Amino acid sequence: MQALLFDVYGTVVDWRASVLDELRALGRARSLAVDWEAFLAAWKGCYTPGLERVNRGEVPWMTVEQIYHEGLARLLPEHGVTGLSDADVEHLVRVWWRLRPWPDAVPGLARLRTRHVIGPLSNASFAGMVRLARFAGLPWDCIITAENAGLYKPRPEVYRTAVSLLGLNPGQVMLVAAHNYDLRAAQAEGMPTAFVPRPTEYGPRQATDLVPDGAWDVVAQDFLDLARALET
Amino acid sequence: MQALLFDVYGTVVDWRASVLDELRALGRARSLAVDWEAFLAAWKGCYTPGLERVNRGEVPWMTVEQIYHEGLARLLPEHGVTGLSDADVEHLVRVWWRLRPWPDAVPGLARLRTRHVIGPLSNASFAGMVRLARFAGLPWDCIITAENAGLYKPRPEVYRTAVSLLGLNPGQVMLVAAHNYDLRAAQAEGMPTAFVPRPTEYGPRQATDLVPDGAWDVVAQDFLDLARALET
Repeated sequence: MQALLFDVYGTVVDWRASVLDELRALGRARSLAVDWEAFLAAWKGCYTPGLERVNRGEVPWMTVEQIYHEGLARLLPEHGVTGLSDADVEHLVRVWWRLRPWPDAVPGLARLRTRHVIGPLSNASFAGMVRLARFAGLPWDCIITAENAGLYKPRPEVYRTAVSLLGLNPGQVMLVAAHNYDLRAAQAEGMPTAFVPRPTEYGPRQATDLVPDGAWDVVAQDFLDLARALET
Repeated sequence: MQALLFDVYGTVVDWRASVLDELRALGRARSLAVDWEAFLAAWKGCYTPGLERVNRGEVPWMTVEQIYHEGLARLLPEHGVTGLSDADVEHLVRVWWRLRPWPDAVPGLARLRTRHVIGPLSNASFAGMVRLARFAGLPWDCIITAENAGLYKPRPEVYRTAVSLLGLNPGQVMLVAAHNYDLRAAQAEGMPTAFVPRPTEYGPRQATDLVPDGAWDVVAQDFLDLARALET
């Protein structure tokens, strides 16, 4: 395997716990009585419809930050949050650049990097992935995101653009993801696949992506387990 | 300054000495009597005309590896070099992925990275920059090349694409280069500029780019000097 590309939100970083911590800290600082779990569920709920509008061509390219900013502008007053400045809102949108990696992620990536080119293949913005890598210490060789294709996963153009930028054939580039839909799209493009479940990505009652639902080439417990599997 | 983008061939790495070493080693191994300095001058001479054909739209996108491969296929027999296998030729083209950084480059980049997002903005292929970064230990936050724009420097689209991917305004992204033509194009796009002369890039008799010929924001002796200048 020449290169490994990684989904990031959920697969590499624990976005839910990280964002919840910041929302709750904001609530304490401003004495806001908000159900932040429900707020985050609604906010994260803007993501897929936003991407789909871009993929259907209903709107020109929008970064996830723009999608989350739009969502926030609607959700804050709905949840009774008022009085935030534009700078406060911008800071809150950029919480998606301040996410904690799962405990195995950084040591696993460092080990995988000794044998493979590694990079994200995320629906994040390019700038967002650059900032997240600096925040979380992710030792990527390069950053590739949906923004490089102008479309969002699971559109095949995203995987094709990444393989082309790496100067490789699809069979030389493995996608690593905690989400079956992403692996399915990569496999359809001829890429090898590794499923690394993250059973608490959506919290303690997560019901999706607990098990592989396709013929993935590797199923690993975490990134260190993935490294061991690829070394044998 | 939020981000610094660097020209690479000449500015970050000493391509001439690195490629000459490999050519001479090939000559010794195959007992070839070739004037390798002249050979390299001719080979490097394929570069600018190749890029210009792409920029004029006369040919579809070609990576620099493709341009150098074409040039090599013509130059090898002209210089009496025969008997190389396809794998030999491919290995030789990829010498552009195995270039030594100038002595100040890696420590300078590491120091600049503590305060700024750093990345290449090279006419190299994306894959070539990824491989060179691994070979030379260049601590980039991200890789951006002409391939991301589908055109070559000094076309303005290349600088605009880079600034857009970084999610910044041109005034927040400095171009660092040893070549005045590159800085001129960046400045025309509103980017701050830093000139770091590399007076032996073309060997001991270099006659170009020895001095700044524009109103660049910073003129520095090397990357450590640049770091000091940006810290004050």
